[in-house]
Amino acid sequence: MVTTDEIVAEEKQSSNFDLAFYLEEKKQLVEAALERSLSIGKPEKIYEAMRYSLLAGGKRLRPILCLATCELTGGTTEMAMPTACALEMIHTMSLIHDDLPAMDNDDYRRGKLTNHKVFGEDIAILAGDGLLAYAFEYVAAQTQNVPPQRILDVIARLGRTVGAAGLVGGQVLDLESEGQPDISVDTLTFIHTHKTGALLETSVVSGAILAGASDDEIQRLSKYAQDIGLAFQIVDDILDVTATQEELGKTAGKDLQAQKATYPSLWGLEESRKQAQQLVDAAIAELASYGEEAEPLRAIASYIVTRKH
Amino acid sequence: MVTTDEIVAEEKQSSNFDLAFYLEEKKQLVEAALERSLSIGKPEKIYEAMRYSLLAGGKRLRPILCLATCELTGGTTEMAMPTACALEMIHTMSLIHDDLPAMDNDDYRRGKLTNHKVFGEDIAILAGDGLLAYAFEYVAAQTQNVPPQRILDVIARLGRTVGAAGLVGGQVLDLESEGQPDISVDTLTFIHTHKTGALLETSVVSGAILAGASDDEIQRLSKYAQDIGLAFQIVDDILDVTATQEELGKTAGKDLQAQKATYPSLWGLEESRKQAQQLVDAAIAELASYGEEAEPLRAIASYIVTRKH
Repeated sequence: MVTTDEIVAEEKQSSNFDLAFYLEEKKQLVEAALERSLSIGKPEKIYEAMRYSLLAGGKRLRPILCLATCELTGGTTEMAMPTACALEMIHTMSLIHDDLPAMDNDDYRRGKLTNHKVFGEDIAILAGDGLLAYAFEYVAAQTQNVPPQRILDVIARLGRTVGAAGLVGGQVLDLESEGQPDISVDTLTFIHTHKTGALLETSVVSGAILAGASDDEIQRLSKYAQDIGLAFQIVDDILDVTATQEELGKTAGKDLQAQKATYPSLWGLEESRKQAQQLVDAAIAELASYGEEAEPLRAIASYIVTRKH
Repeated sequence: MVTTDEIVAEEKQSSNFDLAFYLEEKKQLVEAALERSLSIGKPEKIYEAMRYSLLAGGKRLRPILCLATCELTGGTTEMAMPTACALEMIHTMSLIHDDLPAMDNDDYRRGKLTNHKVFGEDIAILAGDGLLAYAFEYVAAQTQNVPPQRILDVIARLGRTVGAAGLVGGQVLDLESEGQPDISVDTLTFIHTHKTGALLETSVVSGAILAGASDDEIQRLSKYAQDIGLAFQIVDDILDVTATQEELGKTAGKDLQAQKATYPSLWGLEESRKQAQQLVDAAIAELASYGEEAEPLRAIASYIVTRKH
């Protein structure tokens, strides 16, 4: 007798799903939407600074995850696109502020000079503030054909993800931990679930909320997102050690220089790779009830451990 | 024959409205709500930094305006309180970031050391980010007994008010204008309608939106708010020249030191006082269709030109 598990395994192997094509197609949609989302106003300098970082490329993984789960759970690209853009505005804002001299003091990001190196520290702070505020405005004003209460749920979740219980809290603990050689795995994981994981989870979950997914579905997608979020960070730490600056588009070995605790520094490279793979397997297991329509999410999970930058 | 104008004038004079009592009563409500809005979480330092500035006193004029117009247009305190708190979170965030060394580099605010002097520049940036994100979360998650679409309208408006079209844009032009001796009245007014006026206007209008006021009513309240907003800024500039540091609770004469253009520097003190009074009169005229229930807004307008700090 053929079991359901075997059928799912068979389907997975026989799937002709082309992740590179999928990501490129979605990325182009997102790029076009981001370009449209923010035109130049007065004073020009602040709009230029916001656009410089927002339109600086990148994988656009967060918006793509939001679009993917919205479609997976019965919604449309149109319903999710304003939130997808807002997720990238928030991500961009957190990068601009993290790169500031008073924080991580980074000169390069995505292969380009950081915002404050080009526009100055004052404008970089304000560009981050502007993007953060605009993210909320954009979701509230631009989301169409979604019941207002769902939009409010997404906004509340976005706020929590950025604030002291999310990105901001994670960055504070990250700054406090810098130069401390005896950081525990628990502390490191707290930092990353807040700094990286929370926004990835909200990217996945917000798409499902907009589509009107059930609580049970949202819970499983949350778990999927938590697992790939942590795997993503472990792989980021691994790449910081192993990749060249050219591959990475930012200063390589930065964590090592700053004496930051990382998974490779705590576990070694081999164990870090193993843990990342286990998390990705667990993430994919959360999608067992879906058929081929979840191939994008499965492939994205697998991609996280195999990526080179 | 007694004209309507005369009756209104008579009513105004015979009104026993006690503004000091009203402001104190509302302020206590707002203080209690702000205290409840933000409890200490982990990591403690960021919550302490956010609370340090949010609970540092001040007139709480923005939340009080929001509560006042919500009640004036048929709503309740309960409907408006989360938005009232969010307005103060946003105002506080803008003060924390404006005070940073990369911006106005101020050491004192409301008679206390500024956030970055106490917690460091990195934490101050993050405390501002945290307050901004929390403001949106708080409105979306905590507003009760208001149709969701109205809450979305308020959120969209709050976002626009903070962003490049509001506070952020005003601050950019303010920074650009510093040290330039030939700033025009138009530029100065652009700066202030964005930096100060926009948030005051949104404070007034958001209360009316939550209560479900008509477009016509909202338009008149907008005009009222624009007028008192500009008057407020003119008086701020006057006080910077005439008040002592003790009265002001911040470094007096700061604008003069920084060679910032101000209304007194462009118009002189007497003309500045006259313009402020005319704006307050125009603001009060917008409330002509209301009876005694608009006394708080009339008295607040008058208070703006007579205040000493």
